[in-house]
Amino acid sequence: MNTLIKNALILDMTERDKSYRGDIKIENGKISDNPLFKADRELDATNMICMPSLINAHTHTSMGLMRNYKDTAPNLMAWLNEIFPIEAKLEPEDIYWASQIALSEMISTGTTAFNDMYFMMDQTCEAVYQAKMRANIGKTLFGSLDNIQERLKPFDEISEKYLSKANGLIKFNVAPHAIYTTPLETYLYARDMILDKGGDLHTHMSETQIEVDNSIKDFGDTPLMYLEKAHALDDIKVVLAHGVYLSDDEVKLCKDKNISVVHNPSSNCKLASGIAPISKFRKSGVNVALGTDGASSNNNLNMMEEMHLAAMLSCVSNLDPIANTPYDIIKMATINGAKALSIDDKVGTIEVGKDADIILIDTNKPHLTPLNDPFSAVVYSASGSDVDTVFCKGEMLMHNRKLLTIDVDLAMKQTKKRWEHLLTK
Amino acid sequence: MNTLIKNALILDMTERDKSYRGDIKIENGKISDNPLFKADRELDATNMICMPSLINAHTHTSMGLMRNYKDTAPNLMAWLNEIFPIEAKLEPEDIYWASQIALSEMISTGTTAFNDMYFMMDQTCEAVYQAKMRANIGKTLFGSLDNIQERLKPFDEISEKYLSKANGLIKFNVAPHAIYTTPLETYLYARDMILDKGGDLHTHMSETQIEVDNSIKDFGDTPLMYLEKAHALDDIKVVLAHGVYLSDDEVKLCKDKNISVVHNPSSNCKLASGIAPISKFRKSGVNVALGTDGASSNNNLNMMEEMHLAAMLSCVSNLDPIANTPYDIIKMATINGAKALSIDDKVGTIEVGKDADIILIDTNKPHLTPLNDPFSAVVYSASGSDVDTVFCKGEMLMHNRKLLTIDVDLAMKQTKKRWEHLLTK
Repeated sequence: MNTLIKNALILDMTERDKSYRGDIKIENGKISDNPLFKADRELDATNMICMPSLINAHTHTSMGLMRNYKDTAPNLMAWLNEIFPIEAKLEPEDIYWASQIALSEMISTGTTAFNDMYFMMDQTCEAVYQAKMRANIGKTLFGSLDNIQERLKPFDEISEKYLSKANGLIKFNVAPHAIYTTPLETYLYARDMILDKGGDLHTHMSETQIEVDNSIKDFGDTPLMYLEKAHALDDIKVVLAHGVYLSDDEVKLCKDKNISVVHNPSSNCKLASGIAPISKFRKSGVNVALGTDGASSNNNLNMMEEMHLAAMLSCVSNLDPIANTPYDIIKMATINGAKALSIDDKVGTIEVGKDADIILIDTNKPHLTPLNDPFSAVVYSASGSDVDTVFCKGEMLMHNRKLLTIDVDLAMKQTKKRWEHLLTK
Repeated sequence: MNTLIKNALILDMTERDKSYRGDIKIENGKISDNPLFKADRELDATNMICMPSLINAHTHTSMGLMRNYKDTAPNLMAWLNEIFPIEAKLEPEDIYWASQIALSEMISTGTTAFNDMYFMMDQTCEAVYQAKMRANIGKTLFGSLDNIQERLKPFDEISEKYLSKANGLIKFNVAPHAIYTTPLETYLYARDMILDKGGDLHTHMSETQIEVDNSIKDFGDTPLMYLEKAHALDDIKVVLAHGVYLSDDEVKLCKDKNISVVHNPSSNCKLASGIAPISKFRKSGVNVALGTDGASSNNNLNMMEEMHLAAMLSCVSNLDPIANTPYDIIKMATINGAKALSIDDKVGTIEVGKDADIILIDTNKPHLTPLNDPFSAVVYSASGSDVDTVFCKGEMLMHNRKLLTIDVDLAMKQTKKRWEHLLTK
């Protein structure tokens, strides 16, 4: 269905602070300038900001099950001791329904693409396929390579199935968890998998000071340098989640090797990890994307809120209100996220020829009156619930705040049931 | 109208982490345990969290006009140089409509009471009276005492009018702006006004390091100590906004003199002021409330978002995820706010005999599924737009997200018109 979005305030994210009023033609899923374009449907966007949909560059979709669960434990290990026994009991149906909840959250706050790392990826793939979203799904590797062939077999079947079925919306990465859970041999194997089957490497990196200290103690080097010197990163594209404690040498390496860093401000705050120095990354030429991490350490998947927190932390941690301007922050959640997911040829900006991954933000709200600078308004004043309409590859996933590709009432009912069952198992 | 709220998940905020399912009877504006209670209206709150409504303990309501306006100026002074010429042109009608917008924002995100400091207080009073909200309105003193009698005359007339008209919902404070704009003689005069007519003293205090440095240079002491030693605070109740850089002696003074400190995390981040050490305040026995500051340095008046940011900053700045637990944070936005506004005998907790200032938060949302710990859910997962129903003194101000005491469409239209007019003046 071809859609004409009329008279929107457009932030196309192609140029610093550029905004203008205009129309957007969506033809065959793409942004079009066809002069013979015929619309099947017109949307009056007079009160709307129109911008690229958001990209959640690091998450664990199904961890929403554990949101607000025992999260006032005194420290990370005490909390993990509550979480691990639950995770050990997870069944495919838990992941399927929790994925539907996660996708509902993401779509309803303007996100259409995400970079995932979790278990039972077939369930998440099916949920993404049905919801008509876009995702890079991680083939997650955790721990050593014992019985690796057996463990990896499902990956190939699943990825082949969804690569052909999902019309290019689902891709696959290889995701070794972190150097403190997963040995070098697994990282090297991950690299081999990528060279063999494609995809990028997605891993946690330098999230806490303890991780870095232990890396120096155990491996004689900081985490990223350790992997680099062991050739685990040669000839592949890499996405690092967190990077709170990257050294200056590592920041330079990220720039030189085109490694993206995903800033997860909520998770880094909530787990008391620290504040990643994103101004330094950006000024060093590193691609900085934005993510929510899992909803159990956030505790939601709201990228509008993530932009808001990233901006606030940038101002206060640099003692400089424009170390990263609202435009810089929105870039992190759009085109920079697209670069991190290797989909920037398709999405992340509003440009003729790109897929129509677009959101409309309703500005006819008291907290957006007057609107004034639309970039400031999106980052500082708006909320996820101001997102009115969401397109992914031209398909409408939400309109007037109603989700169109997920039965959210059923998903909530099933998720509550599965969670109650898990707690009594 | 007497209301029965049925089967809610109640956080009455009387005891750490206490929650239970139950009914709330609202009779003649108060929370009742009358066994003969007859409801005129019943609300099924099976999917709702019921808790005290939020209290915004420091704001400048009408500054919403300047939200997102030139706020990527390189520094505070450059920004103020954009703001002051606008403020010089403000007319009563601007303040009236901007107040309506501010009250709409506050009610729709669960706030029913606020502590205000701005100009043309009659306009804000009228908006509060019409909206059936609760407010402490500051008689704002800025600068020296030249022609003071003339300037203060309207204060008495306005306060007498609304003290009798607003059924106890509107009170008055005296609000000297800050020691860097307002000399000691004005603070001493403010104290005299309070001893004469009542109210508390509401002022900005130790918001930035520069303010403290200049105070030491100009007055030979830190700001609060300077006022204390000059007897400007003797025998009156004091509320300090910000307190980011209070010294240890000043923190002790706050405890000893029952001075409340209002934490404004968004404003302190956005203006790059710093992070107030609220754990230290709380552990020292100081009453810590929460505020949004004006919407021009926030850029909204959403206390749900303010709780969220306060929690995130607490975790990361203390490198301790439970330095202030979600319960502690919600206290700051409810009963501690009530103490700061000297209305804790009436509101701030859900207790029989108190006024029914209550909100219902709709938990039937994907981002609140499963709910798990309701305190964590309110602080970490929920958004302002999850507030479904709002009562102030038993009067319903919002139901099913529809504002009942403000014509919000008219307020938005008029505010946009006034703002466009201001820009061309």
